[in-house]
Amino acid sequence: MSRYWSDVTRRLTPYVPGEQPKLSRLVKLNTNENPYPPSPNVLAAMQGELGDDAASLRLYPDPNADRLKSAIAHFFADASIGAANVFVGNGSDEVLAHVFQALLKHDKPVLFPDITYSFYPVYCGLYDIDFETVPLDEDFAIDSADYLRPNGGIIFPNPNAPTGRLLPLQAIERIVTGNPDSVVVIDEAYIDFAAEDVPTAIGLVSRYPNLLVVQTLSKSRSLAGLRVGFAIGHRDLIEALDRVKNSFNSYPLDRLAITASVAALLDRAHFDTTRRAVMRSREELVADLQRLGFDCVPSAANFIFIRHPQHDAATLAAALRERAIIVRHFRLPRIDQYLRITIGTDAQCVDLLAALREIL
Amino acid sequence: MSRYWSDVTRRLTPYVPGEQPKLSRLVKLNTNENPYPPSPNVLAAMQGELGDDAASLRLYPDPNADRLKSAIAHFFADASIGAANVFVGNGSDEVLAHVFQALLKHDKPVLFPDITYSFYPVYCGLYDIDFETVPLDEDFAIDSADYLRPNGGIIFPNPNAPTGRLLPLQAIERIVTGNPDSVVVIDEAYIDFAAEDVPTAIGLVSRYPNLLVVQTLSKSRSLAGLRVGFAIGHRDLIEALDRVKNSFNSYPLDRLAITASVAALLDRAHFDTTRRAVMRSREELVADLQRLGFDCVPSAANFIFIRHPQHDAATLAAALRERAIIVRHFRLPRIDQYLRITIGTDAQCVDLLAALREIL
Repeated sequence: MSRYWSDVTRRLTPYVPGEQPKLSRLVKLNTNENPYPPSPNVLAAMQGELGDDAASLRLYPDPNADRLKSAIAHFFADASIGAANVFVGNGSDEVLAHVFQALLKHDKPVLFPDITYSFYPVYCGLYDIDFETVPLDEDFAIDSADYLRPNGGIIFPNPNAPTGRLLPLQAIERIVTGNPDSVVVIDEAYIDFAAEDVPTAIGLVSRYPNLLVVQTLSKSRSLAGLRVGFAIGHRDLIEALDRVKNSFNSYPLDRLAITASVAALLDRAHFDTTRRAVMRSREELVADLQRLGFDCVPSAANFIFIRHPQHDAATLAAALRERAIIVRHFRLPRIDQYLRITIGTDAQCVDLLAALREIL
Repeated sequence: MSRYWSDVTRRLTPYVPGEQPKLSRLVKLNTNENPYPPSPNVLAAMQGELGDDAASLRLYPDPNADRLKSAIAHFFADASIGAANVFVGNGSDEVLAHVFQALLKHDKPVLFPDITYSFYPVYCGLYDIDFETVPLDEDFAIDSADYLRPNGGIIFPNPNAPTGRLLPLQAIERIVTGNPDSVVVIDEAYIDFAAEDVPTAIGLVSRYPNLLVVQTLSKSRSLAGLRVGFAIGHRDLIEALDRVKNSFNSYPLDRLAITASVAALLDRAHFDTTRRAVMRSREELVADLQRLGFDCVPSAANFIFIRHPQHDAATLAAALRERAIIVRHFRLPRIDQYLRITIGTDAQCVDLLAALREIL
């Protein structure tokens, strides 16, 4: 603490991301990264941008990333999305930060689940936004009826994190229609792992001016290392985000991030192959873990949320770590007996199961 | 405007960056990019990071960019800078945004010159910070005595933008010592073009806990396309920036930006060769422009700020544009008869002079 700090800085409790260990021997199942590399087209596109002397790096990127907005609109063309419905940012965390400041800061409190992405209350602290948490039910499900009360905005991930549970689109639509005076933000970081036919809320955007859907290229496009996220909504909502972005940083996406993202979005075959592989591994891993006595929350994400009735979660996490496997454990009410484990390659799943058999 | 916008979003007047035209035939002298490519080591380092399948991109970057902080500290080791004195961000614009929120938001107004980087008042709008502008003198110089009055913080670029004028270190030290209760931020985006022996204020940091120096790799390292900036100051100031950053976006710098920046900082020979070439071109261009009758503000940057007593600046800018040369003209009080022109390659300087001879 220092007398030079602003009041808001004194009051902040920053977000703590999952550990990014610098050892490479570890089986890293703690931050929900994709176990597969990005599309080969990504590498080719980046090589093209770099050329033989990386000379293009001396020039600023397009501040509006128009090529990327068009590629995203093209990907969701079936949902009547145009480039004017797209906002892009330096990872979905930056997009969410702007969303809180531009669209969720009102007199009434923002609503989000009691168990959810732990960055949401941090954003509220940063922008001095009131919030109320809404308890998930006993099975960690969201009940749409709980969100039909006065609020200044609503946000939750779907599938939720760290539970992995999916809320059906009909329930989302009930929340959106029941709150015509608020913006409802669906944070779909993990939606592409939900099912073959992706149950995204983007299909509802053209009908509801108060619905904003946030996605990321970090998970299903294997580009966590490049930091690209986006939001899709009515052009009035996008304009608000652009105003805040252009008052914060004109050029949030670098030249390589733009180029790589466009290439990733164009390769639907790689996208489908890799997300199907993750879904298949998840089903197999869950079956194996259930045989070991674990309770598994139904997951629509590239991670699972599990507990063992006879074993303390923190102890399990520590024992896995001794075996060079890192998973995420949250010391928080209601979930301190759960572990969140990323779906790795099949070989990593085998390592995980072998370690758990040793420990139990 | 929409009822979903927050109050601050309604009130914002966003920053407007210089045009990034999508045509490549243009002689682009409007956004102060370096005319030379980055160090060849940058390309090699990025190729190493990408490998043969870009697989590392599936993993998040180091949220703290420790390698980059160490490289920056190493570069400034003579000034007793350690990694704990370094903050890094997604371009110096993001760094400055965090600086305003973390260190310049207090009850008293922030002070900056009346003619300066036009993003400063925008940040004040974004974070609801009072400010007062301090007029430059008739020669566009900063008078340190003007900054010895009550304030909640002080910020200016050195050399100043868009004038290019340098304030000597003794004057900066007077401002820093005269304001022990405020943070003084020196925005050194262009300092490496000032002189052979770079007159950075980083050498003062170890003596003054209220001095923060911001730099960027966009200009003297030719990496505008990658978005990397940094701040150097007492560890208490850095901690404030870290708290805000970790409440906004855990991973602002992507893997390639970190890797490329480290490589650029290690190549001192390329840094010195290219910045000397820019300084030499500037001296030649200024001499040629003076022969054409232009008044040139003494420049310590990679741009010049000039006017012609017989020719309207907006008309000149339009005439240059017709000849495929774009420069920056600000329709603002006191400077609407000036043009800001980036120092290009020698060939571009020749094109510029030929076009001006035609026009005058």
